[in-house]
Amino acid sequence: MLMNRPSGASFLGDMLGDMLAALLERSGRRGQRRSQSIEAMCDALLAEQNEASSLLLAADILHSYEGMTAPEKTSFFTYINEAMDIDPAALAAAASTYMQDRSVANYEAVKKAGEPLRYEFLRRLNAPPAATGGLVRMRADLLGQLAEHPDLARSDADFVRMLRSWFNRGFLILRQITWDTPASILEKIIAYEAVHAINSWEDLRQRLQPDDRRCFAFFHPAMPQEPLIFVEVALAKGVPGSIQGVLAAEREMLEAAAADSAVFYSISNCQKGLAGISFGNSLIKQVVRDLSIELPNIRNFLTLSPIPGLRGWAAKEAISIDSQNQEAVTSLAAHYLVSQRGKTGQPLDPVARFHLSNGAQILAINPQADLSKNGLAQSWGVMVNYRYEPDRIAENLRLLHEKDQLAMSAGVRALAQQGAQLIAS
Amino acid sequence: MLMNRPSGASFLGDMLGDMLAALLERSGRRGQRRSQSIEAMCDALLAEQNEASSLLLAADILHSYEGMTAPEKTSFFTYINEAMDIDPAALAAAASTYMQDRSVANYEAVKKAGEPLRYEFLRRLNAPPAATGGLVRMRADLLGQLAEHPDLARSDADFVRMLRSWFNRGFLILRQITWDTPASILEKIIAYEAVHAINSWEDLRQRLQPDDRRCFAFFHPAMPQEPLIFVEVALAKGVPGSIQGVLAAEREMLEAAAADSAVFYSISNCQKGLAGISFGNSLIKQVVRDLSIELPNIRNFLTLSPIPGLRGWAAKEAISIDSQNQEAVTSLAAHYLVSQRGKTGQPLDPVARFHLSNGAQILAINPQADLSKNGLAQSWGVMVNYRYEPDRIAENLRLLHEKDQLAMSAGVRALAQQGAQLIAS
Amino acid sequence: MLMNRPSGASFLGDMLGDMLAALLERSGRRGQRRSQSIEAMCDALLAEQNEASSLLLAADILHSYEGMTAPEKTSFFTYINEAMDIDPAALAAAASTYMQDRSVANYEAVKKAGEPLRYEFLRRLNAPPAATGGLVRMRADLLGQLAEHPDLARSDADFVRMLRSWFNRGFLILRQITWDTPASILEKIIAYEAVHAINSWEDLRQRLQPDDRRCFAFFHPAMPQEPLIFVEVALAKGVPGSIQGVLAAEREMLEAAAADSAVFYSISNCQKGLAGISFGNSLIKQVVRDLSIELPNIRNFLTLSPIPGLRGWAAKEAISIDSQNQEAVTSLAAHYLVSQRGKTGQPLDPVARFHLSNGAQILAINPQADLSKNGLAQSWGVMVNYRYEPDRIAENLRLLHEKDQLAMSAGVRALAQQGAQLIAS
Amino acid sequence: MLMNRPSGASFLGDMLGDMLAALLERSGRRGQRRSQSIEAMCDALLAEQNEASSLLLAADILHSYEGMTAPEKTSFFTYINEAMDIDPAALAAAASTYMQDRSVANYEAVKKAGEPLRYEFLRRLNAPPAATGGLVRMRADLLGQLAEHPDLARSDADFVRMLRSWFNRGFLILRQITWDTPASILEKIIAYEAVHAINSWEDLRQRLQPDDRRCFAFFHPAMPQEPLIFVEVALAKGVPGSIQGVLAAEREMLEAAAADSAVFYSISNCQKGLAGISFGNSLIKQVVRDLSIELPNIRNFLTLSPIPGLRGWAAKEAISIDSQNQEAVTSLAAHYLVSQRGKTGQPLDPVARFHLSNGAQILAINPQADLSKNGLAQSWGVMVNYRYEPDRIAENLRLLHEKDQLAMSAGVRALAQQGAQLIAS
Repeated sequence: MLMNRPSGASFLGDMLGDMLAALLERSGRRGQRRSQSIEAMCDALLAEQNEASSLLLAADILHSYEGMTAPEKTSFFTYINEAMDIDPAALAAAASTYMQDRSVANYEAVKKAGEPLRYEFLRRLNAPPAATGGLVRMRADLLGQLAEHPDLARSDADFVRMLRSWFNRGFLILRQITWDTPASILEKIIAYEAVHAINSWEDLRQRLQPDDRRCFAFFHPAMPQEPLIFVEVALAKGVPGSIQGVLAAEREMLEAAAADSAVFYSISNCQKGLAGISFGNSLIKQVVRDLSIELPNIRNFLTLSPIPGLRGWAAKEAISIDSQNQEAVTSLAAHYLVSQRGKTGQPLDPVARFHLSNGAQILAINPQADLSKNGLAQSWGVMVNYRYEPDRIAENLRLLHEKDQLAMSAGVRALAQQGAQLIAS
Repeated sequence: MLMNRPSGASFLGDMLGDMLAALLERSGRRGQRRSQSIEAMCDALLAEQNEASSLLLAADILHSYEGMTAPEKTSFFTYINEAMDIDPAALAAAASTYMQDRSVANYEAVKKAGEPLRYEFLRRLNAPPAATGGLVRMRADLLGQLAEHPDLARSDADFVRMLRSWFNRGFLILRQITWDTPASILEKIIAYEAVHAINSWEDLRQRLQPDDRRCFAFFHPAMPQEPLIFVEVALAKGVPGSIQGVLAAEREMLEAAAADSAVFYSISNCQKGLAGISFGNSLIKQVVRDLSIELPNIRNFLTLSPIPGLRGWAAKEAISIDSQNQEAVTSLAAHYLVSQRGKTGQPLDPVARFHLSNGAQILAINPQADLSKNGLAQSWGVMVNYRYEPDRIAENLRLLHEKDQLAMSAGVRALAQQGAQLIAS
Repeated sequence: MLMNRPSGASFLGDMLGDMLAALLERSGRRGQRRSQSIEAMCDALLAEQNEASSLLLAADILHSYEGMTAPEKTSFFTYINEAMDIDPAALAAAASTYMQDRSVANYEAVKKAGEPLRYEFLRRLNAPPAATGGLVRMRADLLGQLAEHPDLARSDADFVRMLRSWFNRGFLILRQITWDTPASILEKIIAYEAVHAINSWEDLRQRLQPDDRRCFAFFHPAMPQEPLIFVEVALAKGVPGSIQGVLAAEREMLEAAAADSAVFYSISNCQKGLAGISFGNSLIKQVVRDLSIELPNIRNFLTLSPIPGLRGWAAKEAISIDSQNQEAVTSLAAHYLVSQRGKTGQPLDPVARFHLSNGAQILAINPQADLSKNGLAQSWGVMVNYRYEPDRIAENLRLLHEKDQLAMSAGVRALAQQGAQLIAS
Repeated sequence: MLMNRPSGASFLGDMLGDMLAALLERSGRRGQRRSQSIEAMCDALLAEQNEASSLLLAADILHSYEGMTAPEKTSFFTYINEAMDIDPAALAAAASTYMQDRSVANYEAVKKAGEPLRYEFLRRLNAPPAATGGLVRMRADLLGQLAEHPDLARSDADFVRMLRSWFNRGFLILRQITWDTPASILEKIIAYEAVHAINSWEDLRQRLQPDDRRCFAFFHPAMPQEPLIFVEVALAKGVPGSIQGVLAAEREMLEAAAADSAVFYSISNCQKGLAGISFGNSLIKQVVRDLSIELPNIRNFLTLSPIPGLRGWAAKEAISIDSQNQEAVTSLAAHYLVSQRGKTGQPLDPVARFHLSNGAQILAINPQADLSKNGLAQSWGVMVNYRYEPDRIAENLRLLHEKDQLAMSAGVRALAQQGAQLIAS
């Protein structure tokens, strides 16, 4: 049936339409595969004056790129890393001129000289329909090459700058993920879950359908089929002390209206190519705000979080401990979270770093909280509750930044002291 | 029942939700009006480490800005123009360092020094929900101050750069505007129509509802209620020679499937604050593509366009002509369009410049084609048809760029020669 | 652009698609106009065994009907009134058989004999896409013929029965009408407003866009473009005593959250063809329920209603009164509403009848409340507030049905006594 | 932010809203469980004058019903079967009166007497939000009781009549089922597939996501979460001869645009409670129409269908055959389909009956076409292609109804003769 396009057409509909148009267009031109080298195409894209030609050229470059072997990609990245760099001599000259005469023309000149050609190159590559996803994948490839080709970090810095601009917080769309969400999105939730694996569609349903479960994700309008980050939430009465309890299939189901706590038990970034562009803080804050409105009875917003660095640190410090002694492992974990800092003075544990720098407080340490193989391996099964109190976030952050004080409950403070003595003894 | 507002698709719904959240949040904080000066708030925004605080601060700055008087706005713009400029001495130093050692760290340093603080300032301002529209309005204000404060052009250049990045072609959404479109959007179509005024809702309906009429607009996801640009299209048999004929209420209605031509008779930019960021070319090309697929019988894509510069040019050149002599005014118009170039070598007439640089051809010149007061005043009522032939656009552009040849029909060429002789005689 | 059909496709989209399909199909068959008489087509429809043929035949009958002159329609209605009646002899026989043997077969036989052929005829007519709207229009025509052709009331009774089944309360969809609603729906709101005329789009906007205004309508899935009934609501502080105050353009706007009362100031039925199938009670009850949830501060749900029968009644009763004496007209109105009953014992005034039989209470009588020409002509400008108290509706109804007591405030009771004395004196 | 559940289009949103309203309402009244017997509630519902009370009572009856044990349900059905029957004496009297005087009042009286109270009872039960689904389930229960309580068939006949009216073809919505469909709908497709079981989500994806697969379902607006019937389609080149080939995961994928045939390989009714209300014919016809428009290259619309009755018939007829002899089983199948008729003269095989009475033709008989256990058990693995040719459907039906001729290809005719000889020999 020929569909009409109602004005209220869904946003996704339009984007898909755009892509379809692009495909049709492409198929009409098939066989005209450009004989130019990729380098020549890149140069041509930067030189192109006409927008329509520029769009086609950008689409062709992205298409060619997708078909490249790993070495070809290295050579492509090397080309844009070298050929599109800043010319420091020209820039120094432009800066001097501007120093003497702060005219608008000189300002434009200095900005032009100070901006790598890669910026414009990436902007043009991003213009065709559905290009943004391609650039995110391209940057994932680039990240994978940095170890062997550290110089490419210059290009990577440019990717980050452009992606940060495009993935501006104001452009992100929060959507609730439910059992009514399209299967094509849900299969990505299964694939991207990074903390507590989802083993089947049935397992997924258990995390979405019950009244005491919620899941939220950020999307970007230019990648409507791809979640960027998502968080899984369990509504509860009181503070849950173990992930087994949260995920138990046969647990008693709670009515949402009866819950007093919302527990963020899993946060997963979905796009490797967006590494370094952080969405987690925004996501948590918005979900806290939304749930506060939807369910006014919820007063506690907290996490049930892993301590990925605990056993690695203990091994490195040659601390020996009886892993069956729950009091010992718990207090050691408290000490580790509270007192161990990295070079920049921030908490050594990455998850602690994330939540504390978002303004959360360390609320409680729970032994035997994650008895999975992975949980035992990284932290003897110990987990943490971090707490987000909307009214105290600003103060927590002030104390952190001004006085270098971590926010924690009295119980955690006492436990950490115990842990410190344990090592000292 | 919680009502779902029907006309808003899920995407709009989410955006509105965001705004609602912002409002709720704001209302909860009312009375906490910051006592800081706007300058101090701007500095604080750039210094803020925490994202949540940064969002609130950005929202407060935008809110304060909306309440400013014109002189306060001047002072605000002056502040960001001076305090957030590039430091050329530091930049020259960084460039020299990078010249000697192309390390990643030096690259980051040179980029940092080469980028005005305004970029980061604008990025942070753009983060709260619904901020983008506020920044577009802010830039409209800034444009209005350039005549009196030409130095602010440095800031304007930075606004343009950031807006161009955010309003990337790949992020734009094409929507058909119909009589089923929400009234809140339609009233903006009425307000923004810049070529042939829409005098009433009934007048609007005549441009949307008949089967031989179409209207398309670009939207940006972060400003879902605001069209960026729109084009009105009349489907026709043959090439229409006057706007009176196109707009006549009592004309015979054509079934869309019977049309062989699509006539773009009005294109209006909607956002002053996006001046210099061009959407028209993309819009025309996509509408050509979409209509080609929807209505395969349509073979001619053309405009019915004004010649805004004709009489001004003739007056300046002191050309005297009998305005009732239709042959004379027509041939003079042809000569003007075809042979009169500006300083950069491009056609003097802005509408001609736009369509020719998009790859169109001058197809025909029509006397007595716009008998409105405005049409007579600007061009003795003469109008032009430009033609977009998908298969010839690339060649037209090549000839334009390489050989400086304008694309035109044989008839227009002959008419232009007549016009040249008319003046010479 | 060829649209794909996303699974979340809007419901309207699908219906339009269906209609489109029907149109395409029809256009393919154009020129095959059936040469049969309409009576033969009706007989054929009842005889048709194959569903596909039945659909086409039904569509052709509806199409033929739309093109008929008034006399042709009379003849069409007369045909179905006579030819599709119940056969009482056959029915009496079937009833006797069933009396003796209550077998399933006999039951089926008695039901078949007891059901007019018109039921099956209407069911089959209703099967093609978009047929329902056509049948509603057909019944509006039929209603218009009853005065001259009272026998057709038999057919009308059958229409009512079928329409009541199709327009089951459970199938109706409540939608909020806002300034974001498609213009194609809004123009119908303007056209159908029956109480306080909407004079322009600007006037409409004043009833939809302010934060203290609401409008709700019922729709049926098979007529998605046609509101069935709608109610306009003003949010207020306290009980408004005049329609001038409610509609004043320059009134002070109230924030919805600050309102304590919701005033139903206009209810309009939209479809003549659905006369006798009442939606008003359901609509009011659902809007009360929805607004209670959305705006918990609202405690009073009331109307500001006309008294259409007041002056007609006074004239008939030859009551003479000084129309400038507001106390007199008010007390007379109270007496009329409270004490004057029709033949069936129900309140004489139709609006009073409607609200009281829905369980409302007469709350207050307001002089000079509708100073429009119409308001003065029907009730010297007096209006009434009826009040809907969710907790008292059941009790009000019980008293009405069991004890024939009308619910009213003490003030209205006293006023009515005054009115009774006024006449007596 | 108030979340909008993304997958629900506005229409679903409204229905869910209704249900929510019902739930809220109910929860507010919890504990007021009516102490009346179900019979008393049924009588009260029929007597209730007020619509609001009627809605609540209906919701309570449906709710009580859902909680009943099987014997309680029997008693409930028995009550409505006896207490709400037609009174044949009253009906005979009314018929006689009407025979003598065909007044409108007498007509109304005879209709009232001729209509079982159950009709009005079911109409009132159907009024609350979401009631329709409950009534469909109720009728499924009723069907299950008919074997033991054949008298209840009178009530069943009334259910069928009302359901047929509510599930009017004009109210049904066709939706394509894709991998983008909400999981909550997809799980029902898995559950309801009745022909070739879907064993996993992965299996389901194979039937939805490839470009050469389609699935379509009918929905009713009052049961938006419940498919009524769905058909699975494989696009192909040529006529596929086995279901193994169609379902093979490793088959070569075809581009939809390259297909010339659409193969309906599975049609499943979803709602037991709608047995006897046929949607299959409409569904096939509309899918044929839609696919014809979407994919103009498709010229053959055919099925790959089972022959469920073949071996049962052969056993009953004591026909012994070498099941390994493919020629023998194929020709026997042809003979069975073509020549074996039931009591009413229609084809004995139910699937043949369905397709032939829809106007299809028997195109081909395929040996070893379904090697599943079930396929071998019912028909030695033989399957049939029926063909739907839009231009020949009417003629096929005419020949069937007027001359009792089945439509078949020459090949099938020859094969059937062979089969007849095989038995004779």
